[in-house]
Amino acid sequence: MSAAAAPRAFARLRERFATLADLYQVDGVLEWDQLTGMPAAAAGLRGNQRATVTRLAHELLASRETGRLLERLDGRLEPGSFEAAFARVARRLHEKAVLVPPRLRAEIAAAESEALVRWEEAKRRSEFAVFLPALERTFELRRRYVERFADATDPYDVLLDDWEEGLTTAELVPLLQQLRDGLVPLLRACADREEDVRPRGRSFPVARQQRLVRELFQLVGLRPGTWATDVGPHAYLVGIGADDVRVAVPYHARTLQAIFLALHEAGHALYENQVAPELARTPLGSGASLGWHESQSRLWENLVGRGLPFWRFFFPRLRAAFPRALAGQRLESFVQEVNLVRPGPIRVAADEVSYTLHVVLRVELERDLLAGALAPSEVPSAWNERMEQYLGVRVESDAEGALQDVHWAAGLVGYFPTYALGNVLAVQLWERLLRDLPELDASLERGDAAPLREWLGRHLHRHGKLFAPRELQARLVGGLDAGPYLRYLRLKHGHGATALGEPSGGRAL
Amino acid sequence: MSAAAAPRAFARLRERFATLADLYQVDGVLEWDQLTGMPAAAAGLRGNQRATVTRLAHELLASRETGRLLERLDGRLEPGSFEAAFARVARRLHEKAVLVPPRLRAEIAAAESEALVRWEEAKRRSEFAVFLPALERTFELRRRYVERFADATDPYDVLLDDWEEGLTTAELVPLLQQLRDGLVPLLRACADREEDVRPRGRSFPVARQQRLVRELFQLVGLRPGTWATDVGPHAYLVGIGADDVRVAVPYHARTLQAIFLALHEAGHALYENQVAPELARTPLGSGASLGWHESQSRLWENLVGRGLPFWRFFFPRLRAAFPRALAGQRLESFVQEVNLVRPGPIRVAADEVSYTLHVVLRVELERDLLAGALAPSEVPSAWNERMEQYLGVRVESDAEGALQDVHWAAGLVGYFPTYALGNVLAVQLWERLLRDLPELDASLERGDAAPLREWLGRHLHRHGKLFAPRELQARLVGGLDAGPYLRYLRLKHGHGATALGEPSGGRAL
Repeated sequence: MSAAAAPRAFARLRERFATLADLYQVDGVLEWDQLTGMPAAAAGLRGNQRATVTRLAHELLASRETGRLLERLDGRLEPGSFEAAFARVARRLHEKAVLVPPRLRAEIAAAESEALVRWEEAKRRSEFAVFLPALERTFELRRRYVERFADATDPYDVLLDDWEEGLTTAELVPLLQQLRDGLVPLLRACADREEDVRPRGRSFPVARQQRLVRELFQLVGLRPGTWATDVGPHAYLVGIGADDVRVAVPYHARTLQAIFLALHEAGHALYENQVAPELARTPLGSGASLGWHESQSRLWENLVGRGLPFWRFFFPRLRAAFPRALAGQRLESFVQEVNLVRPGPIRVAADEVSYTLHVVLRVELERDLLAGALAPSEVPSAWNERMEQYLGVRVESDAEGALQDVHWAAGLVGYFPTYALGNVLAVQLWERLLRDLPELDASLERGDAAPLREWLGRHLHRHGKLFAPRELQARLVGGLDAGPYLRYLRLKHGHGATALGEPSGGRAL
Repeated sequence: MSAAAAPRAFARLRERFATLADLYQVDGVLEWDQLTGMPAAAAGLRGNQRATVTRLAHELLASRETGRLLERLDGRLEPGSFEAAFARVARRLHEKAVLVPPRLRAEIAAAESEALVRWEEAKRRSEFAVFLPALERTFELRRRYVERFADATDPYDVLLDDWEEGLTTAELVPLLQQLRDGLVPLLRACADREEDVRPRGRSFPVARQQRLVRELFQLVGLRPGTWATDVGPHAYLVGIGADDVRVAVPYHARTLQAIFLALHEAGHALYENQVAPELARTPLGSGASLGWHESQSRLWENLVGRGLPFWRFFFPRLRAAFPRALAGQRLESFVQEVNLVRPGPIRVAADEVSYTLHVVLRVELERDLLAGALAPSEVPSAWNERMEQYLGVRVESDAEGALQDVHWAAGLVGYFPTYALGNVLAVQLWERLLRDLPELDASLERGDAAPLREWLGRHLHRHGKLFAPRELQARLVGGLDAGPYLRYLRLKHGHGATALGEPSGGRAL
């Protein structure tokens, strides 16, 4: 092979991955449409469409030619370069792809499309039985998928690695254990101690909530002309590309939950929005991992969005939008209200202390489902038992229980752990942000999120997948550590003094 | 080749065309999203996405394997069978595809995506210059496209055949001539004679128009759960499949134009909606041609939607929706109003007599643009001159002139003639319908469109592309004939007695 062959091989590899990126983006548009505009009877067509797009992408990724180009580049790219990072991610995708036959991929895509429709119906009717056949099929297909990876230490590792490169069950289990052991007693203490200050019977007209959500997207700083939002059955970002981020938000007139869901999704959207343009149409052109992604959504939702500085700016706007519902309400009591720890059945509506316990429950169940230790039909009872055990919550219906999340319907098995990682990383990052940006609170009080947005862009977002998740952990926060997250929650909820000598990163209410 | 080889080759061909159908459907979703929900800055990404989908479809269609399978089937399929019709359409697509290199296809797709964005901006600003570079590129690419077809008698024939299988410039030109010669004097006579009865300053709140449009879709009988509608910059059907039809409608509070645009698009949508399910994911699974498609939209818009029987049913509903604007208005004067012949600059708002003259103008210009006899920069002046000559209308702005239609931006060159064919065929079909369904008017007066819908489904819609357009003309109306259309208009607008001994298909107001 001549010296010029490596650049030529790289250019050809790059062309293949540009086509792949287009196909993934196309699937993003199909997904967004399915969530927001597609007529119900079109589900069958959509299943075929997505199966075909997925199959074509898979064929390209798994092709011998892609493998040959990667082989020719092996050891010939400068370590630390864009090309080396490109080849790292491309090789990982290729190797996964060759292990999984196209037919299985297509079956999975078609089953997901069907499962989404069943799940929506099941949730609407609050009947787990309507979803059960689709759930059985989902885990049957996941097991066939996992079987292809003969080298895996733990079957669950295969699924974890799909969402969080390099994450293992062996490191996840003790992390979740530490979180569970820290959070269960804290939740109990908070629930006993915090008074439910939420006024009843308020109404927040949805059209005005929608206007405020658009204001929030501008405040967070999504680039003008790159985003769209619509009403969706659940909060969801479809990151089609850096120039095209779509946020679905569900609205209910009784609560302001949409505000926090929107901030959460805006955090995801901003990450995609700020990936460097030169990474577009390469395998590096989106967020580093789901854990890192979730760190961004939780940072905006909780560290910014439940903090006093942000509300000093935004509460007057909120009160102007809902003068009747918020008549006489004071800023401080409002901030107390949105931080109230009050365990309930719904994950996406959960307070910060309960949240990770919802995640622990789901991870335990999906590991058991994958291992065959739990039958899909037993999910509702297992779910409800653990809700009592960890959160002290009695689940009243399947819609508020095992049917609440889209993930298993969308084939997102092994995805939940990244939520716990996100919570942990968000607080680790926030500690660093408070050191690097001493004026952070002051800028948020002015409604100026630019310093925060720019810091995140410079240190994290623009890199896309140039660095592996673990490398980013080392560079940005010195490694994954649940300590700051637990300390932050204890401090914030008035248990800091008993648990720790000094506050670290947290902010007392 | 063994006797069993033909069925095997057909099965393999069928599989390839199923993938192709999925890709075309995917492009339909991308197009719909681009029209209704896509953020503006995403246009670049969308261009790449559609270019990739188009290129993959093209590669599959043009591949040697597709050609080989077609060769193996040659002369081995039973004439008149589903398989023979499949192979007829598949062969035509394949032969066109092999003549056009993938790179040119991709350039055309990317240029269209860009042109759509420029056209929208140009129209918004009413500045033809903003669109000019995109228009130049469009015709440059069309010429390169046409050059590939060395056998064509007339360059324009190549483009005509893309939309209307087998239509030639040689037969089109005299047809349009006949229409122009018949319509110019009729239009002049109507404009002199008909009084402008339209009340001024009425307002029709858009939200209520949107509700009525949904009612109309139900009345026409689009299958529940298969359709969606949204606000769009122009009226447009995206027929993704029989189970997924999307209708974009523009609304303006000052007029009820949206009602007629919606009926028009509903006619298109119903055609796709009623194609036989067994034709799905085959090259036969959509309407026979654009001329036939347009016959359906014009039938619902004009023959149904501007007729007294329909308004006997629908006018009370309209008046209930707009009690203020329509206070004191009588049914008869309303029907007179919506049939008023009053030439204006806008094609989609044109009365029935003016409409085809708009089409003639566009066809003349695009033939000259393709031949290089007219420079794109000269389009506005040529446009405006002919508007005066044929319609007696002075064009005040580019937005109301040469920028009004999306077609050239969307690469739809050679498409306009199908509108004239549609008008002609709609009246020919209506004549037959009045013979076959003597109770047609009575059912429409009851708001019952089922007899009409079922007739159209049985005789036309369900066949998809099983029959070639010319064959359908012979079967359904005994061949293309402009006579009934001209007679119908003369009769309807009070000139029937002078032009013809007896009414034929038309209905005096």
